[in-house]
Amino acid sequence: MRVQISSRLASITGSAIRDIFKLLGDPSIISFAGGNPASSALEPERIADFASQALRENGRTILQYGQTEGYAPLRESAAEFFRHNGVHADPGHILPVSGSQQGLDLICKALLNEGDTMLVEDPTFLGALQTFRTYGARFAAVATDEDGAIPESLEEQIRLHHPKLIYLIPTFQNPTGRTLSLERRKRIAEIVNRYEVPLIEDDPYCDLRYAGSPLPAIKSFDAQGYVLYLNSFSKIISPGLRVAAVVCDDDALLRKLVVGKQSVDVHSPNLNQAIIDKYLRSGLLQQHVEEICASYAKQMAKMQQMLARFPASISYTKPDGGIFLWCTLPEGFNATELLTTATKRGVAYIPGTHFYAQAGQHHNTMRLNFSNASLENIETGMERLRELFISQGLR
Amino acid sequence: MRVQISSRLASITGSAIRDIFKLLGDPSIISFAGGNPASSALEPERIADFASQALRENGRTILQYGQTEGYAPLRESAAEFFRHNGVHADPGHILPVSGSQQGLDLICKALLNEGDTMLVEDPTFLGALQTFRTYGARFAAVATDEDGAIPESLEEQIRLHHPKLIYLIPTFQNPTGRTLSLERRKRIAEIVNRYEVPLIEDDPYCDLRYAGSPLPAIKSFDAQGYVLYLNSFSKIISPGLRVAAVVCDDDALLRKLVVGKQSVDVHSPNLNQAIIDKYLRSGLLQQHVEEICASYAKQMAKMQQMLARFPASISYTKPDGGIFLWCTLPEGFNATELLTTATKRGVAYIPGTHFYAQAGQHHNTMRLNFSNASLENIETGMERLRELFISQGLR
Repeated sequence: MRVQISSRLASITGSAIRDIFKLLGDPSIISFAGGNPASSALEPERIADFASQALRENGRTILQYGQTEGYAPLRESAAEFFRHNGVHADPGHILPVSGSQQGLDLICKALLNEGDTMLVEDPTFLGALQTFRTYGARFAAVATDEDGAIPESLEEQIRLHHPKLIYLIPTFQNPTGRTLSLERRKRIAEIVNRYEVPLIEDDPYCDLRYAGSPLPAIKSFDAQGYVLYLNSFSKIISPGLRVAAVVCDDDALLRKLVVGKQSVDVHSPNLNQAIIDKYLRSGLLQQHVEEICASYAKQMAKMQQMLARFPASISYTKPDGGIFLWCTLPEGFNATELLTTATKRGVAYIPGTHFYAQAGQHHNTMRLNFSNASLENIETGMERLRELFISQGLR
Repeated sequence: MRVQISSRLASITGSAIRDIFKLLGDPSIISFAGGNPASSALEPERIADFASQALRENGRTILQYGQTEGYAPLRESAAEFFRHNGVHADPGHILPVSGSQQGLDLICKALLNEGDTMLVEDPTFLGALQTFRTYGARFAAVATDEDGAIPESLEEQIRLHHPKLIYLIPTFQNPTGRTLSLERRKRIAEIVNRYEVPLIEDDPYCDLRYAGSPLPAIKSFDAQGYVLYLNSFSKIISPGLRVAAVVCDDDALLRKLVVGKQSVDVHSPNLNQAIIDKYLRSGLLQQHVEEICASYAKQMAKMQQMLARFPASISYTKPDGGIFLWCTLPEGFNATELLTTATKRGVAYIPGTHFYAQAGQHHNTMRLNFSNASLENIETGMERLRELFISQGLR
């Protein structure tokens, strides 16, 4: 068969990451590469109960075609749930979607034309970069430091590039784990409203906090609705159910997100939305999140404790939550190339280069995930990594 | 908020159909407008059982991130299931998707560039037209008759327009209910392979047959893999679960479908795929489909019996299955305009004009759905429609 692939996908392969995940089929490799919740954090029996309840009470609605705008009870319970992040949205402004990734895709579909510029943190979530690329986005980077994106840089880049869209992960960022300060949240909300540039606030990790005080979302300071807030139930309930939600206060834009969704999948499956709705209304979620956090906090502490024994030339982030740490090796060391040796020694990570908008840079960085590894595996895997780095001459 | 909508969605509103469905919230209106399975055909208890079984046996896999390529057991059971349509695919060539609509979207994403021409039946499924439009497709029409698409016309249109993609619904077509003959299936498979033009064979209704003998899919005559076969579990199990599958024999194209899917939703929810897998392996589906067919056959017969009493100037299709009938009023009568009066009289349909690639034509046509109306409602609703037409001077 001879076919010509569309220009939007012709150059997109995603292979680098996929090849890494293929390696991970090998059970002898301890993986810090994914972004998965701990297997022990998943609750098959509870989810089966919620599914049965929902189907018993409302089965013929749930199994029938649903509304593109989402399962009405979930729009209400999600609106209520997001209040703890300072996001006060009308249920009519909540669009349940099939994972945050679909939220990103629909926003791009509604707003981006080929060649439009997006402002992103550098590094940022590689899955988001892939979606943006399928819409022909060009990228400009917002400078960041320990407190996240720097508002002065954001404003400068807006003036310079007139971006169509901004993408930030303000809390426990993927891949760095860093968190945007309160003051900067206010300033960034003000800037995007003043320049009238929509900002996607991607916030899947905010409830996974192990230290410090919760911060309100940028969205909570959004005066005119330029912040599109994205939150997901993947990290606190289940990624396999694929339920997230977009908060969009602008009716005209929301309508276009719905029209776009209609054309890509008609609607998200009702059963999955009903399960999440049941969980949100059960009163059980807070305790579940506390239990996850207690466990992840120990896993993060163990990984940091191991990193403290690494050669001093390696620096790493010290987040207050989330599921990732970000390591920087001295210039000249290549974490991308070292991965092959690492997997031979039974440990895997994601080379940091894949998180940068410009390909082929920052080969001295890497992302480590701790949420899906036991304390024992973190100890063993990190020791393997330490020995590898020392064998490479790192001091 | 002021935002500029992308050119791909700026002109797409979908409002005509949506406005119709909004009217249908009124319970006094008998609706023949949708494409829903009968509420009585849905099985909340059985689905809850399959969900519980799947979660009990494989819950921590099902609730974790899954593979973009699909839930492995479903790829196997779907491959097995499609054999009864003459489609013999390797499980590795089956891509489970979130409803056929997502299959259409992913194929377009992988193959279409702005301005590419698609060949479609005229009329054809309006949801497919909307998806194709978001990719900037131009349309050329394949001529059809009582036996479906005419191969000579298909070949002529291929020569004339060099289409990038062809879209056909060969069995119990939406909206006409017509079925492509066996001989034409063979010829069309031969033509698309000879001209090397990929054909989407959308086949959601094939199992809803009430008369005549089953026909093998066009895909069963596909020598080199130019037929992309799409089948859905929406009409025979549940549309709300959103599970369908694409069969794609070309590894390079399949890879692009997967890369595209990765960027739009990472993967389809595992639980939904596991439920369908359980159903396919249960041995219960055949009897369920037989029961649905027995009921739908009566509903179709009742609707045709009522149509036989309509003024003789109205013609309508007489399908062997599916869920739709297609009516043609004499030229000059406008079913689009009449809909407002019809809903005031308590009956609704979809004006046929929306199923044509060129807007604003064929206002004398309409689509009637019988699967989601009781025999009593079909009798009452069709009588209302008959009276309306007579009041408009139809003889």
